[in-house]
Amino acid sequence: MRIGLMGFGKTGRAVGTVLLGSEKTKLQWVMRKSTALEHRSVSEFLGVPTDEPGLIYSTGEMTAAELLDAHPVDTIVDFSSEDGIAYYGEEAARRGVRIVTAISKYSDETLARLRTLAESTVVLHSPNITLGVNFLIIAAKILKNIKPDVDIEIVEEHFKGKPEVSGTAKVIAGALDVGDEAIKTVRAGGIIGVHEILFGFPFQTVRLKHESISREAFGNGILFALDNLPVDRPGLYSMDDLMLPYFKLNATERDFEEEHRKPWWKLW
Amino acid sequence: MRIGLMGFGKTGRAVGTVLLGSEKTKLQWVMRKSTALEHRSVSEFLGVPTDEPGLIYSTGEMTAAELLDAHPVDTIVDFSSEDGIAYYGEEAARRGVRIVTAISKYSDETLARLRTLAESTVVLHSPNITLGVNFLIIAAKILKNIKPDVDIEIVEEHFKGKPEVSGTAKVIAGALDVGDEAIKTVRAGGIIGVHEILFGFPFQTVRLKHESISREAFGNGILFALDNLPVDRPGLYSMDDLMLPYFKLNATERDFEEEHRKPWWKLW
Amino acid sequence: MRIGLMGFGKTGRAVGTVLLGSEKTKLQWVMRKSTALEHRSVSEFLGVPTDEPGLIYSTGEMTAAELLDAHPVDTIVDFSSEDGIAYYGEEAARRGVRIVTAISKYSDETLARLRTLAESTVVLHSPNITLGVNFLIIAAKILKNIKPDVDIEIVEEHFKGKPEVSGTAKVIAGALDVGDEAIKTVRAGGIIGVHEILFGFPFQTVRLKHESISREAFGNGILFALDNLPVDRPGLYSMDDLMLPYFKLNATERDFEEEHRKPWWKLW
Amino acid sequence: MRIGLMGFGKTGRAVGTVLLGSEKTKLQWVMRKSTALEHRSVSEFLGVPTDEPGLIYSTGEMTAAELLDAHPVDTIVDFSSEDGIAYYGEEAARRGVRIVTAISKYSDETLARLRTLAESTVVLHSPNITLGVNFLIIAAKILKNIKPDVDIEIVEEHFKGKPEVSGTAKVIAGALDVGDEAIKTVRAGGIIGVHEILFGFPFQTVRLKHESISREAFGNGILFALDNLPVDRPGLYSMDDLMLPYFKLNATERDFEEEHRKPWWKLW
Repeated sequence: MRIGLMGFGKTGRAVGTVLLGSEKTKLQWVMRKSTALEHRSVSEFLGVPTDEPGLIYSTGEMTAAELLDAHPVDTIVDFSSEDGIAYYGEEAARRGVRIVTAISKYSDETLARLRTLAESTVVLHSPNITLGVNFLIIAAKILKNIKPDVDIEIVEEHFKGKPEVSGTAKVIAGALDVGDEAIKTVRAGGIIGVHEILFGFPFQTVRLKHESISREAFGNGILFALDNLPVDRPGLYSMDDLMLPYFKLNATERDFEEEHRKPWWKLW
Repeated sequence: MRIGLMGFGKTGRAVGTVLLGSEKTKLQWVMRKSTALEHRSVSEFLGVPTDEPGLIYSTGEMTAAELLDAHPVDTIVDFSSEDGIAYYGEEAARRGVRIVTAISKYSDETLARLRTLAESTVVLHSPNITLGVNFLIIAAKILKNIKPDVDIEIVEEHFKGKPEVSGTAKVIAGALDVGDEAIKTVRAGGIIGVHEILFGFPFQTVRLKHESISREAFGNGILFALDNLPVDRPGLYSMDDLMLPYFKLNATERDFEEEHRKPWWKLW
Repeated sequence: MRIGLMGFGKTGRAVGTVLLGSEKTKLQWVMRKSTALEHRSVSEFLGVPTDEPGLIYSTGEMTAAELLDAHPVDTIVDFSSEDGIAYYGEEAARRGVRIVTAISKYSDETLARLRTLAESTVVLHSPNITLGVNFLIIAAKILKNIKPDVDIEIVEEHFKGKPEVSGTAKVIAGALDVGDEAIKTVRAGGIIGVHEILFGFPFQTVRLKHESISREAFGNGILFALDNLPVDRPGLYSMDDLMLPYFKLNATERDFEEEHRKPWWKLW
Repeated sequence: MRIGLMGFGKTGRAVGTVLLGSEKTKLQWVMRKSTALEHRSVSEFLGVPTDEPGLIYSTGEMTAAELLDAHPVDTIVDFSSEDGIAYYGEEAARRGVRIVTAISKYSDETLARLRTLAESTVVLHSPNITLGVNFLIIAAKILKNIKPDVDIEIVEEHFKGKPEVSGTAKVIAGALDVGDEAIKTVRAGGIIGVHEILFGFPFQTVRLKHESISREAFGNGILFALDNLPVDRPGLYSMDDLMLPYFKLNATERDFEEEHRKPWWKLW
């Protein structure tokens, strides 16, 4: 699978390292605004020895059409910024190149643009593209579904310098329909990132906890997305969409059992 | 819902307290082997003021038929011991009284007897009937399904005196298809019970953790089971069976979305 | 050691249970405001079989002088309320009976009274008399002493119904000279009590965590205090005072080593 | 303070980064066996812009005498391997250059050599030179001193590939006089390093927990050691020796209080 990477900040580089190290992907290019590393080899720059020829380009030196003509890809992975999509979006959609964007926040206008692009190509948008956090959110929704009146608190821990409340914590709070006052924010030293969802029952607690070790976790989330996104069914997808089929296993198992047990529920 | 309770050890008493406190259940009697508390009021003994008339009986003073004639119930909840079922099983099945048993270990022979009873009445068997642990096991199976090669370790903590490895931890290990060597056993002081399932990814970890605060957690598990067990479809059920429909929510949501998005997976 | 116990609420009963169970202490009486359990045997009421003759009395039926004449004790343990000391304080001081009070908050006026009593007898006042919390506070002060600019956050978890911020968390914050905004308050289900002090360094974290399992922890704190309080040196003591000598071990070890190593610091 | 660094593996580089970033230290050189990075600038190689002129050398190109003549230092920091000391030890001792070595395991023979060197110069040896772990060990010893019969368990978590039990966990177990069977070893994914010492009391638990975020933690431990090691009192020191004076604070506070309170213990 041929990949192009938009953005090459700290997270972009970590994701590039993972893409170079995966046998399933071939990193064709990195495109960024800055000209600082222009035409250097991605492989050499990141210190990951491969035979992949991908170079680092800057948006000023060519249009997306020129880029995709010269170096065609199957999927564009976007860790740049909100306006990255303006550079490559239409050109990718026209060619049916899949778009996987991890930009944490888009304006309503840009989200509308994403939906338009999704009519022509496969688009995945996930503000926190780690497997762990996305699994946590779905699992937490299920537990809340089982016991709607359970007390829920969210504790998020990050490095001292992070000023605002974690965006991921807000997504979790939104998904569980609890107010932002349920989020407890801890800031200390160099903590990379911890999110814990605490369910308090009268006589027991359940804690679902995610800890980031390094930014490369985003790269593995990308690999999962590349594997699980449809190839040719245009639409706007979320990580939820890609993970839900895995929750199906149990239903399949049930099919067999149900014949023997005369199940009492209809929906399943 | 009229309930009869088999067994009145520490856990039986905690469950009795929860049943007395619930508006949905009426505790009709407690049956136990010992004659020590014979004919005392359950409500008064447990210090939970109610107008429920249930008394404590001993198995020696009447047969299950006599008991169920004099004090009919809809469901029998069993926290006694492996041989409790021999006392009341056939009589309950004949009358269509539901059986909810939390006995942690049955012999193959007794399990076979359970299956026979389940042809005539509704039978639930769950060795650890807390909501939290049963949720954890299903969620963990899903995460393993998403990433089958993830490293899994199980840490269980209990009071110093508990000699053997936690049975619940063994059930978790079995469900996740990891060997018992993945179970790390901590024994210290008066810890009531902690189970943590740790998923180690290269760049992140996910921890699913259950902590027991007190034995009353079993009582709340019983209330959930009473609510979710079918009333009149005989069969042998597990807590998994009762919880899985709650995982269905997502699929239902999908139905609506799929029309708009041309879903690419068939099974869902 | 003969003990009298003031107060018989939930915590008082838990402490009474521990005192009855200890070989070092003989519980001579329980004194409380309410007449509800008047003249019942403590041992029988708490279900702890002993040969200790202690009964439950109410303050209205006799003065402290009459009580201490009829049933002399070596130490009074106070889990009643702020005004308990007015009942027994002067009478205890006059007889040299030690006072161990765990009242969580005294007015300035009552604290002044405590100091006066402490001129005649041994007085210990500790708002949270568990070993664990008091150890944590001292250890945390030391770590802050080693690295004064370390980031400190305090997370406290309690049951949903607890309205205010934990008093113990405030004591910790005060001892470490961090503002109350460093305290993150989690309220969920039936959590009994968790306090975690988090030290965030740039590349590592240290967490000091205390979890309460049950109120009996206060009883064990009382036993430690009874063991470590001086018998005959009047004064006002804190749990810190009783624990600090245990930090001395290291200094003693040093004495020996220093002769061999020509130590370079003067204070030690 | 002029520093020379022996060893330039992963940890050596992380330590070098911290030393370059500190205003208190000037990194004069890196010495290593490999010739791979010979004569490159440390500052440039590590991507830490400074005006420090230190280069990378290899042991084959000059003796320690030649190195220390050409590029004198006040302290040598050793993250190389057991035999690094043979290269520079005698030469450092002769010149009174302090030695700070973080080699995790020395043979008895090499330890004897260290002791000889320590007759002429200041030598610090610490197998795990992080502040956090060393603080934890002392604090844990104190808690065990307060309650010698408390149950102690040690949980250590590291990345999947780490084959043996953590050396740090063994040091902890040794310091607390519990057998290696108290160590529970968790191996999963990319966990960098967690050590938890659990104290189980009948009605409460205390957990002392250290988590490594990155190898730079060793660099900060080195800075603490450089600050706290004596300059001119030869001897063999441990991190314990450097941290213990900080436990003295309390004793100093006591001195003042004791005058007023007529203390009952003599040793303090």
